[in-house]
Amino acid sequence: MNSELKHICRKSIEAMDKIQRVNFVNSLPGYKSLNLVGTTNGTGQTNLSIVSTVTHFGSAPPLLGYVSRPESVDRHTLSNILETGSYTFNQVGESFFKQAHQTSARYPREISEFEAVGLTPKWIEGITAPFVAESSVTTHLKLIEKIDIKANGTVLVIGEVIDVFASENNLKPDGNIDLEATGTLAGSGLDQYSKPEKLARLSYAKPDRPLSEL
Amino acid sequence: MNSELKHICRKSIEAMDKIQRVNFVNSLPGYKSLNLVGTTNGTGQTNLSIVSTVTHFGSAPPLLGYVSRPESVDRHTLSNILETGSYTFNQVGESFFKQAHQTSARYPREISEFEAVGLTPKWIEGITAPFVAESSVTTHLKLIEKIDIKANGTVLVIGEVIDVFASENNLKPDGNIDLEATGTLAGSGLDQYSKPEKLARLSYAKPDRPLSEL
Repeated sequence: MNSELKHICRKSIEAMDKIQRVNFVNSLPGYKSLNLVGTTNGTGQTNLSIVSTVTHFGSAPPLLGYVSRPESVDRHTLSNILETGSYTFNQVGESFFKQAHQTSARYPREISEFEAVGLTPKWIEGITAPFVAESSVTTHLKLIEKIDIKANGTVLVIGEVIDVFASENNLKPDGNIDLEATGTLAGSGLDQYSKPEKLARLSYAKPDRPLSEL
Repeated sequence: MNSELKHICRKSIEAMDKIQRVNFVNSLPGYKSLNLVGTTNGTGQTNLSIVSTVTHFGSAPPLLGYVSRPESVDRHTLSNILETGSYTFNQVGESFFKQAHQTSARYPREISEFEAVGLTPKWIEGITAPFVAESSVTTHLKLIEKIDIKANGTVLVIGEVIDVFASENNLKPDGNIDLEATGTLAGSGLDQYSKPEKLARLSYAKPDRPLSEL
């Protein structure tokens, strides 16, 4: 560790003002995935919210999780997921990241964020939740596990991937989706949007073999 | 959704070969955080492993989680965390991402990945787990919750942030850490390393106010 590193202890973190602490702790994981969660309630009222916590939990079966704030707050997305069991993740792209950010404003329940921010709901026959038409990598999930985190009352929502809709040109034969081609962004802190550029793909690591670039 | 999107249904995902499916499902969240987890067991044997699942769970108290594969496999990092309660997250930087990737090779338990890949353990008095000296943003955590995911046997490990060591020059007055200045990388799929460049920081969103760039 180079000598310029500063020690920020737990007491210093607790002594920060709220926004400073939120920025700081949100910087600790590094860059974060950015997705819009699309849902609807039983009466067709849609909801859209940006999250930076979508995480891979497994590939067989295909599972993704995200973290919702406590249920005690008025959480339209979470209550819609619990009501319908269906939701979509839509990767945030360069062409609509400002609209995506605007979904974090606290709109009343009767307002759809789609309309409020200017994004287009896309309905696919047989799927209850709306997709974001502007997104190039979109996933339909079915709720399978809701886990209450004791430490702070947040909720881990785990879903099975049921359908994916993605730009055909950007699907590689090896299964990867080219996230540079899809214009997918990464987030940092609470409010920064960044565009990643590929440095390298590295070969599968083995103890006795040097890595090569793919 | 533009008309070029291809529908990949659940059956198609299940029909992929293993590596193709792993690449595909790992592409669905978008870009991912990249950290090295540093641990030691009771006898001082160190372990280092790269993870792409470190996620913000809360700021007050400061909580970060990551996903470990099932305990049934030989998971040195997880067993060390359960044994000592102490571990570190070290953001993966541009200057050592190849060494970081190499930690994913399956070394036997008696081999330390630090030595095997050429990274430097840094010990701080009073902290059980080793840091990665080459990293510019490093966090010491204490295990507080271990959650077994029923759907596939993976384990969500949640820790409280106890100490942070980060480059002083890159700590902003508003609490953010400048991840471009620290050289932090983002991951995609299983093996791609990317360098994000800032597009914009956006103001706190309110329903009746246009966004501005900060």
